Amino acid sequence: MRGNGKRQTVRLKDIANKTGYSINTISHALRGMNDIGEETRNYILKTASELGYVKNSIAQSMRLGYTKTIAVILGDISNPHFAILTKEIENTASKHGYSVFLLNTNEDEDQEETAIRTAIQHNVDGIILCPVQKSDRNVRFLQKSNIPFVLIGRYFPGMEGVSYTICNDVKGGYIATEYLIRHGHRRILLLTGPSHISSAKERLDGYRAALSDNGIEYDDSLVIEVPIMETDCSTLLPEDGYTAIFAFSDIIAWSAWKILRERGKRVPEDVSIIGFDHIQSRLALPYTLCSVSSYKAKMSITSVEMLISIINGNKDAESIIIDTDIAKGESVSTIS
Amino acid sequence: MRGNGKRQTVRLKDIANKTGYSINTISHALRGMNDIGEETRNYILKTASELGYVKNSIAQSMRLGYTKTIAVILGDISNPHFAILTKEIENTASKHGYSVFLLNTNEDEDQEETAIRTAIQHNVDGIILCPVQKSDRNVRFLQKSNIPFVLIGRYFPGMEGVSYTICNDVKGGYIATEYLIRHGHRRILLLTGPSHISSAKERLDGYRAALSDNGIEYDDSLVIEVPIMETDCSTLLPEDGYTAIFAFSDIIAWSAWKILRERGKRVPEDVSIIGFDHIQSRLALPYTLCSVSSYKAKMSITSVEMLISIINGNKDAESIIIDTDIAKGESVSTIS
Repeated sequence: MRGNGKRQTVRLKDIANKTGYSINTISHALRGMNDIGEETRNYILKTASELGYVKNSIAQSMRLGYTKTIAVILGDISNPHFAILTKEIENTASKHGYSVFLLNTNEDEDQEETAIRTAIQHNVDGIILCPVQKSDRNVRFLQKSNIPFVLIGRYFPGMEGVSYTICNDVKGGYIATEYLIRHGHRRILLLTGPSHISSAKERLDGYRAALSDNGIEYDDSLVIEVPIMETDCSTLLPEDGYTAIFAFSDIIAWSAWKILRERGKRVPEDVSIIGFDHIQSRLALPYTLCSVSSYKAKMSITSVEMLISIINGNKDAESIIIDTDIAKGESVSTIS
Repeated sequence: MRGNGKRQTVRLKDIANKTGYSINTISHALRGMNDIGEETRNYILKTASELGYVKNSIAQSMRLGYTKTIAVILGDISNPHFAILTKEIENTASKHGYSVFLLNTNEDEDQEETAIRTAIQHNVDGIILCPVQKSDRNVRFLQKSNIPFVLIGRYFPGMEGVSYTICNDVKGGYIATEYLIRHGHRRILLLTGPSHISSAKERLDGYRAALSDNGIEYDDSLVIEVPIMETDCSTLLPEDGYTAIFAFSDIIAWSAWKILRERGKRVPEDVSIIGFDHIQSRLALPYTLCSVSSYKAKMSITSVEMLISIINGNKDAESIIIDTDIAKGESVSTIS
């Protein structure tokens, strides 16, 4: 497979040849040591830059045991929610001098394991993981491997020693449901995520609590689990029996809206819809979806700072829960 | 800043202590050498796995001069078009044994330079770049630095020795405009990207050619440049004087649609809209935007394979132009 071998990058020797100075002088000049006159130093730096020289800092940091890289491992970067999180993580990491490795799990536990192993093999200083959660196998492995890591968006209740940033999913589920109830809805279809995912479970908890607090009986025929990697839930959406939908994500909410339109139903006149993630805070779309906002920037920044603190020696597991709020949109109206 | 120093990962010594075998035996077993009996080897591998040992292959590949990493440097990962490209790139790279570094330029030339330098400092084997194109400075620097790289989505016409994968933007601009003309539109507003971007320039070329071929005079008051990092183009969108819009991207098209609705105009009854990128091939939205499809998966796969070929010693610059097509949607109708 390999052809002519590794490219020749610009070496100190090339700069020495070009300028006539010794390799030692070049090295001192590039490292900013004060035994080199300013004029000589500037000449050497200029020549180095013209030749396309880039200081190889990774070798340096590897000698110190650091690579200044973190891995971001999440479900699917093509989901705008994850893409926005990743952008904020990259921006924050970059401000702290870290670069980001990106790995997708496609919500598959084996791919998650491969991603974690790949990250560790590349000597990342730490990992930000949105776990698949089919089991705790991979997180247990992370703990054993001793690599600094934090979870984002999902967590393992009761598991000790694991740092995480999540949003207040119970509250999110509660206020979404309550918002629909206040608009007169009592038959609220929940399109929930897989029950092994903590955020799905807690949004369901919030949904049940809001129904109960408003004297509405829980009806499990109105709770439908949809696969989160699949945007088409047309076969799963019941024809009728509900006046409103609360969806696990905006992606699922949009998909439901699309299917309703195809069936000749109007949103919000016939069915109201509320989603989760408030992607439209970053993406202008013609029709505004009512959603639960989860403060993506804050979640991303918190995760990066939490991870860097662990990399720098903090041994105490932390958990931060970001607040959730209703982001109003035209997809919800009062029942007529 | 640094705390208790680098974590302790699991070392060969730890496996030796746990199993009672020598470090030499552990090393041979882990490397699969045939001087270790199968039973011993299995016991050592099992213990290593239980301890959370991960083979440090980066040190090995660095000795060979390879890190099995590529950098993907693009405008803004939170734009679904870039997110979908990145996902496909990561999938393809992963199949070839490569991991992906992600860096955003935010369409800023200095951030692009920082991203390129960061990638090189991390010893990536190659770079896939969607260039900012305010000038050719950073691509010239890439050439001098001798690192394998390919451009994606944009290119520098006339620049020798640079490999790239783009879509057929001239055709895309042509067929989008012609599609609107066939629906009776003659006053077509073009919301174009900055003119230094090759894809924006070529889509404009296609727009002009389609007008000309259909006997419609080019009117530069109908060509408006919009910033591509800004989703709100409300101040830029003229109140009237057109019956259709051709937008540089779906992001801009959606934004225009939103503004028209806020102004009380109906799409497509009052104004037809066509975008570019066909993001809705991957994202179910309730209202379908007519768009130009640019085969994102094919573009991503081609870029990765082109880059790996260069990493493996191919010295010949290649250019591949991916076809473009109309993806129909309800945002276009025949003028009444």
